[in-house]
Amino acid sequence: MSKYIEINCDMGESFGLYKIGNDEAMMPYIPAANVACGFHAGDPLVMKKTVELAKKNGTAVGAHPGFRDLVGYGRREIKVTAEELYTDTIYQVGALKQMCELYDLPLHHVKPHGKLYVMMGQDEMMAKAFVDAVYDIDPKLPIYHSGSLVNSAIGNAVRAKNMTYVREFNSDTDYDAEGNVITPKYHNGAAADANALAGRVVSFLETGSVVIGSGETLTFGADSICVHGDNPFSENNVKVLTEKLREAGYEIKAI
Amino acid sequence: MSKYIEINCDMGESFGLYKIGNDEAMMPYIPAANVACGFHAGDPLVMKKTVELAKKNGTAVGAHPGFRDLVGYGRREIKVTAEELYTDTIYQVGALKQMCELYDLPLHHVKPHGKLYVMMGQDEMMAKAFVDAVYDIDPKLPIYHSGSLVNSAIGNAVRAKNMTYVREFNSDTDYDAEGNVITPKYHNGAAADANALAGRVVSFLETGSVVIGSGETLTFGADSICVHGDNPFSENNVKVLTEKLREAGYEIKAI
Amino acid sequence: MSKYIEINCDMGESFGLYKIGNDEAMMPYIPAANVACGFHAGDPLVMKKTVELAKKNGTAVGAHPGFRDLVGYGRREIKVTAEELYTDTIYQVGALKQMCELYDLPLHHVKPHGKLYVMMGQDEMMAKAFVDAVYDIDPKLPIYHSGSLVNSAIGNAVRAKNMTYVREFNSDTDYDAEGNVITPKYHNGAAADANALAGRVVSFLETGSVVIGSGETLTFGADSICVHGDNPFSENNVKVLTEKLREAGYEIKAI
Amino acid sequence: MSKYIEINCDMGESFGLYKIGNDEAMMPYIPAANVACGFHAGDPLVMKKTVELAKKNGTAVGAHPGFRDLVGYGRREIKVTAEELYTDTIYQVGALKQMCELYDLPLHHVKPHGKLYVMMGQDEMMAKAFVDAVYDIDPKLPIYHSGSLVNSAIGNAVRAKNMTYVREFNSDTDYDAEGNVITPKYHNGAAADANALAGRVVSFLETGSVVIGSGETLTFGADSICVHGDNPFSENNVKVLTEKLREAGYEIKAI
Repeated sequence: MSKYIEINCDMGESFGLYKIGNDEAMMPYIPAANVACGFHAGDPLVMKKTVELAKKNGTAVGAHPGFRDLVGYGRREIKVTAEELYTDTIYQVGALKQMCELYDLPLHHVKPHGKLYVMMGQDEMMAKAFVDAVYDIDPKLPIYHSGSLVNSAIGNAVRAKNMTYVREFNSDTDYDAEGNVITPKYHNGAAADANALAGRVVSFLETGSVVIGSGETLTFGADSICVHGDNPFSENNVKVLTEKLREAGYEIKAI
Repeated sequence: MSKYIEINCDMGESFGLYKIGNDEAMMPYIPAANVACGFHAGDPLVMKKTVELAKKNGTAVGAHPGFRDLVGYGRREIKVTAEELYTDTIYQVGALKQMCELYDLPLHHVKPHGKLYVMMGQDEMMAKAFVDAVYDIDPKLPIYHSGSLVNSAIGNAVRAKNMTYVREFNSDTDYDAEGNVITPKYHNGAAADANALAGRVVSFLETGSVVIGSGETLTFGADSICVHGDNPFSENNVKVLTEKLREAGYEIKAI
Repeated sequence: MSKYIEINCDMGESFGLYKIGNDEAMMPYIPAANVACGFHAGDPLVMKKTVELAKKNGTAVGAHPGFRDLVGYGRREIKVTAEELYTDTIYQVGALKQMCELYDLPLHHVKPHGKLYVMMGQDEMMAKAFVDAVYDIDPKLPIYHSGSLVNSAIGNAVRAKNMTYVREFNSDTDYDAEGNVITPKYHNGAAADANALAGRVVSFLETGSVVIGSGETLTFGADSICVHGDNPFSENNVKVLTEKLREAGYEIKAI
Repeated sequence: MSKYIEINCDMGESFGLYKIGNDEAMMPYIPAANVACGFHAGDPLVMKKTVELAKKNGTAVGAHPGFRDLVGYGRREIKVTAEELYTDTIYQVGALKQMCELYDLPLHHVKPHGKLYVMMGQDEMMAKAFVDAVYDIDPKLPIYHSGSLVNSAIGNAVRAKNMTYVREFNSDTDYDAEGNVITPKYHNGAAADANALAGRVVSFLETGSVVIGSGETLTFGADSICVHGDNPFSENNVKVLTEKLREAGYEIKAI
């Protein structure tokens, strides 16, 4: 088998007694987890348990920093300064990195969360601050963002630092014509049809293009498939996706 | 000069626009700073600026984790579980350690803050959880606590792990007869008489004993003198203390 | 029908995207809701939606203040001062009262949450501070606490102010021999057997006594039955309880 | 004396041990206080003490709600939804109103804080949500905003509800050519010259126009003069302003 692909999934999004996602059920299917770092979701105990669960499943752990906005789940735009974003990123990623070291796991990657993810596509100053923070932690850390936006603000910032940009394809969210991911408040809209979602992914991998909601076609490459674990269909979706990818000849593993 | 002593001071206790302490003025006198980690005080930007200031002044940086209680400034007892304390400690110290790495500074030590400091003297389970967390980050990290309490819960936990216990003497807070530090809401009570405070420290270092508020005498050893930077007398106090220690033949440096 | 009883239930415990409970399903069965006020659970939008849902269902709305500890869900003891508890209570209850006024709903009662509820049974100073706060908002507001603890700290404080103490019986949590409610991290232990729970309630109402986990029998009175909405059995449990109470001749309504 | 003017000042901006402003010194000069409500600044204990201090000084108390962003002090733009802003406003103002009722003080007015204040000038949807919230609490509550922006989003929203718009003139912050207040991170730039600031206010009141930093002249009316209490010059500034206003024949009192 010469083809391979990664699946990544946001994990560790619970907070205290509040649960989001079913990490135990999802983790076996996920070679690369994006673990929330306590600002938009997650708390230290959740972080540790998530890293422990990843270790057990052989899952690579990435940091998933976001805005300091628990009530908004990191999905509201906050006009932070560049130095605030830089230091918030250092803080969150540093804390998660320490959790990984408890389990002798190297930090695998960094992926911005929610509205921060979206802003990284457009805001040059913010993208630079975020990329600088990741670089200053470890220049070898891959940064995940949309395959559809490699020439965006974050793409430029990653290239300027000679860092690795991992191109994502979103399995269960739509794109607009400019390639921006449309962040839904919930991912469970079209998320109920596992076969359709998996078929869309395999088709994209084979053709390099995807038909978006507007009917237009976007063409780009991807190194990792992003799935979401926060809806009732998540487990079945990733299970079916895994089967379909294997049927199509893909080995599924972390980059 | 064959005698030496360390001075340590809580630093980085501001939060956003809220200022506590005058770190710029204090830092030149402080060989070892205990930097707040964002739970009871401090925020990521304050942490970075504090570490940067320490670097400039040749000050060693320790982590100063506390309870997640900004409104209570970490001075209210919270009955956390052992695993919550363990993971809260990993998180806070890990984040600060990352800030230190930005400036090629090794993390120098860990000192618990406020009510957590107090509970460490008494609660075996909590002391073990805290010490385990520091050990799991780096077994060589010294843990600071009261010289008057080396046989306390935290003293026992540190010994059980063969770690280094740095014995503090508090220059500006009182002790009770059992050697517990009496945490004041503010440190500026008796803090106005710099000569008296400095004299008390030098006398303690020479004799190994101190007369407490009750009139009793406590006898113990110390490796580091704790001063506080959060009151209007702080700068003058540490200046006078530094002079008096040097007059008494002490070199002042980090352990 | 001359007998009646109230059922009360904690509501509005979601926070942002985090969901706890199924308020929509539970509300029709609940004559009196205890609505979280944003410190241990709930946020302003959740509070408003919960009050709106209560209005639609003819449910009376009480305030359910707790410790400022979202990550601990108000279930961790925090040693607040009396004036902190007083003002935290004024703040939370005042905010919820305003939400009620949007819907022309009078505030019906106040019930402390979680560990604050537990501390009210034992700590005279805290109980006085809490009761004083409720009194200063409205001396006619009934205060809910355990029927098993009417001579406790909060019972004494309520009597000292000539206020109304509403005696609860907990349908799905156990008591210790002193009548303290044993707060579980989750209520779903014995919570799966709806008929057993309902039978226990009806038997208690008929006999005034209940056999606790230790095998001992507690005897006391109750004006309101407390149920919990945060487990998968909640909806069925309250449905069955409602049926059994009606079969036993009870009208179910708010006090 | 037939002329009168109000002075308003943000108050109660401390949080826990963190102090901002010197409310004790300022309050005697301030007929109308804008009291922070716990989201961007203030905590319940600070709120109560501030209202108590206002009561003692005969100062009218207004609510000063802001974004839920303590670390950013409410000065960072957050893209909240209209219903989030509505409910955050109800919550904050409701809590403060309850504090006022403890002292038999009616709530006097509502003034948005920081970046929320700025956004109210421009964002129709946000302005409507905010004004709706104040209206739903009490349609008679005056809403304070800039005299230079009476035809702005918030001006339109206030008029649409037939509510009272109190026009502010800022004594110690500059305007841009469109009349937007330029929110500084600190107000102590030009704030050191008390006579110049007071002269600028009196001149504005006499002429209805002010020369802004750009050299242009803005012409508008004002019912209240906004001063700030968070810098070392505040107390002297308000003292001198009070003297100059009285010399110019103004009685200083709440609207």
